[in-house]
Amino acid sequence: MSALKLLTDSAVKAWKQQIERTDELFAGMSDTDLEREVAPGRNRVFYLLGHLTAVHDRMLPLLGLGERLHPELDKEFLTEADTHTTSDVAAQSLRASWNEVNARLTNAIESLAPEAWLERHTAVSPEDFAADPLRNRLSVLLNRTGHVAFHLGQIRLTTK
Amino acid sequence: MSALKLLTDSAVKAWKQQIERTDELFAGMSDTDLEREVAPGRNRVFYLLGHLTAVHDRMLPLLGLGERLHPELDKEFLTEADTHTTSDVAAQSLRASWNEVNARLTNAIESLAPEAWLERHTAVSPEDFAADPLRNRLSVLLNRTGHVAFHLGQIRLTTK
Repeated sequence: MSALKLLTDSAVKAWKQQIERTDELFAGMSDTDLEREVAPGRNRVFYLLGHLTAVHDRMLPLLGLGERLHPELDKEFLTEADTHTTSDVAAQSLRASWNEVNARLTNAIESLAPEAWLERHTAVSPEDFAADPLRNRLSVLLNRTGHVAFHLGQIRLTTK
Repeated sequence: MSALKLLTDSAVKAWKQQIERTDELFAGMSDTDLEREVAPGRNRVFYLLGHLTAVHDRMLPLLGLGERLHPELDKEFLTEADTHTTSDVAAQSLRASWNEVNARLTNAIESLAPEAWLERHTAVSPEDFAADPLRNRLSVLLNRTGHVAFHLGQIRLTTK
């Protein structure tokens, strides 16, 4: 295995580990559990489930891996803060979107050639990328791996 | 810049970003703020400051970068859970250790050659490493970057 592939495989493994840990946590929670706030007055787990799904969905075009699957989630789970009231989205539907988005995304990520991780992501211009080659696909993956870990730490507080 | 170096630089950048974000949060908190629990009955920020310092201190020998600086922190902040009572360690001293450990560690990390990130870490045997070459230094860095993000998400809940 090439040195380059070993490095990108390590990063993909770290991503998958965080997704699996988060997935297990959500799967072990009832729809009622999803209504819990991670701390008094802060986001509900339900909101974070939608938030993470929307952020991961946006990674598909950001990494140049295809069209988004659920842009309709942005308004409630990205643009707006948690309302702490009943949502238009059913918990069952949100869980299905979470699984669908991560499956599609992780599958595409695993298919990327090592060299492709060094290419620019789609939110940076060719000029800006030339000035800072660290604004590559891998940095997006590492950043989003940190993002899911950040919220996982919060969600974990609602469980024993 | 070689492809290998671009990849490892991206990972080091992600580590430094999480450390900086956490550092800013701690620096903006008074010693009294450190006594806050991240959620009712859960770890205090003070405990997490000690916990992260101990975990990062252990990365020095784990990555083969030198001896630990503060093994005395393990008992209170790793082996045992948060007692939610007065500590033997003063907040000022704990803050100094946090800064000292991260400075030493990040400095050593930045000096590592790209190829060195693919070598085994010291907690895996040569045999086990031969069977799974992803048990390399880079995986330790990525794992600990996720670990600090996990707790950063929790500490963030104690601030506005």
